[in-house]
Amino acid sequence: MKNKVGREIPDEFLKEGKQVFQGAFAFDKNVYYKVASKTVGVSDPNHTKVLPDLKAAIMACGLKDGMTVSFHHHFRDGDYVVCMVMQAIAELGIKDIMVCATSLGTAHDALVPLMESGVITGISSSGLRGKIGKAISDGKLKNVAYIRSHGGRAAAIASGAVHIDVAFLGAPTSDDYGNALGQGGISDCGVLSYGEVDARYADRVVIVTDTLVPFPNVPASISCSDVDYVVVVDKIGDSEKIANHTMRMTENPRELILAENAALIMKHTPYFKDGFSFQTGGGGPSLAVTRFLRPMLEEAGIKIGFTVGGCTKPMIDLLKEGFIGAIMDSQDFDFASVESVHKTPGHFEITTSEYADPFNKGAYVNRLDYVMLGALDIDIDFNVNVITGVDGVVRGAPGGHVDAAAGSKCTVVMAPLVRKGRLSSVRDRVLTVTTPGETVDIFVTEVGYAVNPRRQDLIEALKKCPLKRYTIEGLRDEAYALAGKPEDTKFEDKVVALVEYRDGTIIDVVRKPAKYVLA
Amino acid sequence: MKNKVGREIPDEFLKEGKQVFQGAFAFDKNVYYKVASKTVGVSDPNHTKVLPDLKAAIMACGLKDGMTVSFHHHFRDGDYVVCMVMQAIAELGIKDIMVCATSLGTAHDALVPLMESGVITGISSSGLRGKIGKAISDGKLKNVAYIRSHGGRAAAIASGAVHIDVAFLGAPTSDDYGNALGQGGISDCGVLSYGEVDARYADRVVIVTDTLVPFPNVPASISCSDVDYVVVVDKIGDSEKIANHTMRMTENPRELILAENAALIMKHTPYFKDGFSFQTGGGGPSLAVTRFLRPMLEEAGIKIGFTVGGCTKPMIDLLKEGFIGAIMDSQDFDFASVESVHKTPGHFEITTSEYADPFNKGAYVNRLDYVMLGALDIDIDFNVNVITGVDGVVRGAPGGHVDAAAGSKCTVVMAPLVRKGRLSSVRDRVLTVTTPGETVDIFVTEVGYAVNPRRQDLIEALKKCPLKRYTIEGLRDEAYALAGKPEDTKFEDKVVALVEYRDGTIIDVVRKPAKYVLA
Repeated sequence: MKNKVGREIPDEFLKEGKQVFQGAFAFDKNVYYKVASKTVGVSDPNHTKVLPDLKAAIMACGLKDGMTVSFHHHFRDGDYVVCMVMQAIAELGIKDIMVCATSLGTAHDALVPLMESGVITGISSSGLRGKIGKAISDGKLKNVAYIRSHGGRAAAIASGAVHIDVAFLGAPTSDDYGNALGQGGISDCGVLSYGEVDARYADRVVIVTDTLVPFPNVPASISCSDVDYVVVVDKIGDSEKIANHTMRMTENPRELILAENAALIMKHTPYFKDGFSFQTGGGGPSLAVTRFLRPMLEEAGIKIGFTVGGCTKPMIDLLKEGFIGAIMDSQDFDFASVESVHKTPGHFEITTSEYADPFNKGAYVNRLDYVMLGALDIDIDFNVNVITGVDGVVRGAPGGHVDAAAGSKCTVVMAPLVRKGRLSSVRDRVLTVTTPGETVDIFVTEVGYAVNPRRQDLIEALKKCPLKRYTIEGLRDEAYALAGKPEDTKFEDKVVALVEYRDGTIIDVVRKPAKYVLA
Repeated sequence: MKNKVGREIPDEFLKEGKQVFQGAFAFDKNVYYKVASKTVGVSDPNHTKVLPDLKAAIMACGLKDGMTVSFHHHFRDGDYVVCMVMQAIAELGIKDIMVCATSLGTAHDALVPLMESGVITGISSSGLRGKIGKAISDGKLKNVAYIRSHGGRAAAIASGAVHIDVAFLGAPTSDDYGNALGQGGISDCGVLSYGEVDARYADRVVIVTDTLVPFPNVPASISCSDVDYVVVVDKIGDSEKIANHTMRMTENPRELILAENAALIMKHTPYFKDGFSFQTGGGGPSLAVTRFLRPMLEEAGIKIGFTVGGCTKPMIDLLKEGFIGAIMDSQDFDFASVESVHKTPGHFEITTSEYADPFNKGAYVNRLDYVMLGALDIDIDFNVNVITGVDGVVRGAPGGHVDAAAGSKCTVVMAPLVRKGRLSSVRDRVLTVTTPGETVDIFVTEVGYAVNPRRQDLIEALKKCPLKRYTIEGLRDEAYALAGKPEDTKFEDKVVALVEYRDGTIIDVVRKPAKYVLA
């Protein structure tokens, strides 16, 4: 069945109520029942939650073949928790496990052998980077993988599309009752936003920490009232990789031009006024936009009302200097952010559900004026791909891209017109639709920008912007002239991953690349 | 059927799985499914939550005959919200409504005519003070009333024993998306702890405020992601009565002796060591204990780890002076507390579920060393009544009494041996069992104390305490010698209220007093 962005979704995946993508807001006012999680209440004051090791916790939670476990990715490339837990599960002889993670990456290469041995047979994640992405593209996972945005994952959990049997939530600090915090330990990550929906809806919740602190560990990101067990391990992560790798403050001149162009665009749109709200994605050019904001704000004599989403040092600096009213933080990319949250006045933690869940009663992304996002490639319908590389291999992550694009009044996507390797960023048709074009307003490159024809108001407003305006087809033609029309990537029939839109519908499928060779 | 504290519970109430009280920890490790609330997700960024008035919100929420609405009592005797909303419901011709409040009191006299006219046919509350209590005792409510502790109410809501169709939550400030806070307005109440469980499990949630502030109103006690609508009214309460009435800093010499005796007892028990945890109830003598703490702490060279529950100025002072590590606040009794929360370092808000729900995975009360509680009367089994007066009329509130008594390692109940009017506080049998004797450790009077024989360890430890130790029967005899044996209160057969223990079992029933005359 063909969906709203023209992708053919095989019928085999359209069962048990699963539907194809029908438009970004087709499920607005969706009526559903939140998950009834199976809970064990503790009223005995002598009950102890601390267990000696992960295996004891896995057994205490009654984990069995075929169940689903979940993880957050606040430790990013420095994460030890996912592999530790899955290794313990494997050693206990439990198999056929679905791993529902917020993201998986290079820290999780060790999961590939567990996929091959049948311990892990299902995966739901935003990011599928590194060897995991390759293994999935290579068809090594028994079941089809689910790629979900951050908001989409929260919605899937809250609505029961994914039922989590046991959540294993890494925490830089915890007390013996499970009050968990992202600060105060040896592997700090700042907020624990991604884990809250797991804590709220999983049947069983285990906090995994390397730093046990006195009760009460507050302000707790995960409350003791949602935690069954606490396990203390030697180390939950590599602190050098927790807060440093995903984010890079680009010095690449072309990326800086992109960022500067995006900032210039912003300045000429009607939302650029006192109190506006703002988010950037996690890519280099997107993050760099923040660095161009201060002179613009000073010149206009305005300040930002609030920012949402991932947090970086330039934002903290703007907050401290009075240019931002509040930072609503759901992820800390660098040490400055990790240290600041809960401490700098105006720097608040929000959960991923509050940030982006399209099925809650109103997420923060709904209140965004601007979001600055990256793209692997974009097509002439403004559909964006952030998942598959040119070789067709899964390597990216929708993250909050999809959610913020839907929520924001002005969604700006930026990419160099032609990438290294002489590949056009603009195509007739993106390899994998992650974010539908109806939620993308402006595409910015180093040579100029294109506005989605749906937004005639922005075209009008941007007439005063000195940057060159193109049609999206114009940018495509320019790119093709420079780099040639990209060759079609060849795929086998086998579907290795379903790309869910944030409302749980299928927006695209990822197939196994043909003649794919493991790098 | 007779329950564990010897009360006969009529069979007519033991249906649909309802059970009699079987002991304070009989439902420890209770396995249940949390409520699946019916939710309407909002992904359209143009959706507006602000409605022009309460009637518009009531209609938008689809409130119908026979449904349940809920309220919190953070505005105490100054509350306007409950009556405003119920009046609007009445004017819309909706009837047969169950009111599930955290407490009802003198601010809610206007509900009595709505009980008489059939608009309100059911009530669940902790407190039933003032005219409401009298009207219920007089049999004016169509259905039997439910009296629940704060923790018991949270458990009843989370487990679905009470299903809330629409929660109307008063908030001193809110933004237009429903981020609600107890500070920053003209009717501040500090925390909004009682309302969180409603926001989490009600199908529909309406914030009622008199002070609309810019988005985002943070740190939000109730998150926008849980709120359907926002209504702005002229005034949500009388600020003079919000933070002043329930709490009184006693100057009554006998109450001060009680408090001093309780403090002395505390000093001689084994939990009085560095880092101990502490709660007081909301009555005069209980609150006054805090005033005797400082010299004891100084002398012993120790500090309090954390306090839980209701908050008062003496606690804030101790926090600021370094005698308390953290205040975990679920209710603010005075202006000093209202202003302090979220601002004084170490002063944190917790929800009522976190505070006391016996069905969550571990509430704060489970971690208490001491709780200092009041009593209307106590019996020789250490059962405590805080609900019915000597005339049998409902006038009190279990509040967190039951919850803290169950959780605390050392539960101290205090009362004058003989009350004004020459009534003994100790009886063979309390009128209404609120808190079972198995959760009460020490009873303190102005003449001495009695220790529950279950606690031989405390009897041993208190041998060094200079206060006179009695048996509970000894205290009863002393009181009877002074005031005579109290006459039995006469009742009709009609049951007007069920007293639920915190685990949802029935610990006692309240009958209609015989020859009862409306005062």
